[in-house]
Amino acid sequence: MLLCDIGNSYAHFFDGKRVWKESLEEFLDKYFNEKLYFINVNQKLKDRLKDIKNWINLEEYIEFKTTYKGLGVDRKVLCLAIEDGVGVDAGSAITVDLMVKKEHKGGFILPGFKAYEDAFKEISSILDKGIDFSVNLNSLPKNTKEAISYGVIKSIVCLINDIAKGKKIFLTGGDGKKLLPFLENAKYDEKLIFYGMKKIIKDRLC
Amino acid sequence: MLLCDIGNSYAHFFDGKRVWKESLEEFLDKYFNEKLYFINVNQKLKDRLKDIKNWINLEEYIEFKTTYKGLGVDRKVLCLAIEDGVGVDAGSAITVDLMVKKEHKGGFILPGFKAYEDAFKEISSILDKGIDFSVNLNSLPKNTKEAISYGVIKSIVCLINDIAKGKKIFLTGGDGKKLLPFLENAKYDEKLIFYGMKKIIKDRLC
Repeated sequence: MLLCDIGNSYAHFFDGKRVWKESLEEFLDKYFNEKLYFINVNQKLKDRLKDIKNWINLEEYIEFKTTYKGLGVDRKVLCLAIEDGVGVDAGSAITVDLMVKKEHKGGFILPGFKAYEDAFKEISSILDKGIDFSVNLNSLPKNTKEAISYGVIKSIVCLINDIAKGKKIFLTGGDGKKLLPFLENAKYDEKLIFYGMKKIIKDRLC
Repeated sequence: MLLCDIGNSYAHFFDGKRVWKESLEEFLDKYFNEKLYFINVNQKLKDRLKDIKNWINLEEYIEFKTTYKGLGVDRKVLCLAIEDGVGVDAGSAITVDLMVKKEHKGGFILPGFKAYEDAFKEISSILDKGIDFSVNLNSLPKNTKEAISYGVIKSIVCLINDIAKGKKIFLTGGDGKKLLPFLENAKYDEKLIFYGMKKIIKDRLC
C-alpha cells in the first residue's frame, strides 16, 4: 500500500517500510498510474489531483471532531495518529496541536526554520547567518549567529512547552528531528502522518 | 539638535520634541545640509553617509562594554539608555537585550512582525492572514488567523519574559507598542534610542 503526504515543498511517500520524498515537479507523472492514498495541503495542486483515477484522497474519509475552523488535513491526520499529547509537524511551517484523550483542543502555527532563515536574509545581509542547532539555550547569545539561533529555537521550544505542560510531545516533519534535543518528554517519528493515514484506511476503507 | 536613527526600513528623526520617520530614498537629500547626529545599521547606506560633511556618526563615540561580538550600534545605544532591564526594539527585526546594572549580558534576535507575515505568505496563500493583535493568548486558537497570531506573539512574549525574569521591560521601535498589552512590567517609549544618543553626546561630545 502506497501512501503520499503532499505538502508545500515536497511530496512524502511511505510504502509500509520506507519513507522518501519527491519534488513537487516530478511526483505526479512518476506515480500517475500507481494506486495510492494521499492527503494534500498544497493549494496549487488541488485541481490536478482530482483528475488522477487511481489516487484516493483520504481527506474525504476523515472523521475528526474539533471546534477549530479550517484545520489543515495534515494536522487532522497527525492528531488522529497521536490521540493524546502535542503533535508538532516541522516543515515549511511548524504546526503545533494539542490532543487530550482523542479530542482536539486547538493549536498554533509558526514559520518553518527555512522561512525564519529567509526572513532574516530579507531584513538584512548581516542577519543572513542561518540557524545553528548546536546553540546553547541556557546561556545568553554573544554574537549574531547565536542571537538568531537562540531567538528562533528557544521561542518555538518555549511555546511548545507552554502548550504541552508536561504531556508527551510527538515530533514529525522534515525538521522535526532538529527540535528533539531541545525538548523533554518528546519523541521523533517521521512516519506519524502515515500512521494516521493508515488508521483512516483501516477504520473507513476496509 | 537633530538626531537621526537609520534602520533597514526607515530613518527616524528626533528634534528634542517630536519623533518622525522619513523614507530611506528621500531623507539623505532632504537633510543633506543640516547638522545632525546619527547612528546607522543599514549596510547599503554606510559608504554614502561617510561623505556628508555636517552629519556626525555617533558610533565612533560610543563607549560600551560587552562580550557580545558584532552588537549593532542601535542595540548598544538602546542599552545605554535603559541601563538596567530588558531592551526590546521591534522594527524590521526584533532585538532583545539584557542589561544588569549598566552591564550588557547578551541578547537575541527574532524577525519583525512584518517579516513573520511575509514568511507565512511565502509558505502558502492559506497562511497569508496577517497578525491580529487582539488575539487572546490565554485560550488556544480555533482558526488559522488566531493560530498564526497566537504563535507569533506568544512565542516572542514567552522568550522576552524568560530573559526578563521580572525585570523591567523597555519597548521601543515602530512595532514596540503592539507588544505592550501582552507584557507585564513593560513600558513603551519611542524615544529610547534618542535618549541613548543624547547620553553619548553629553558624555563624549560636550
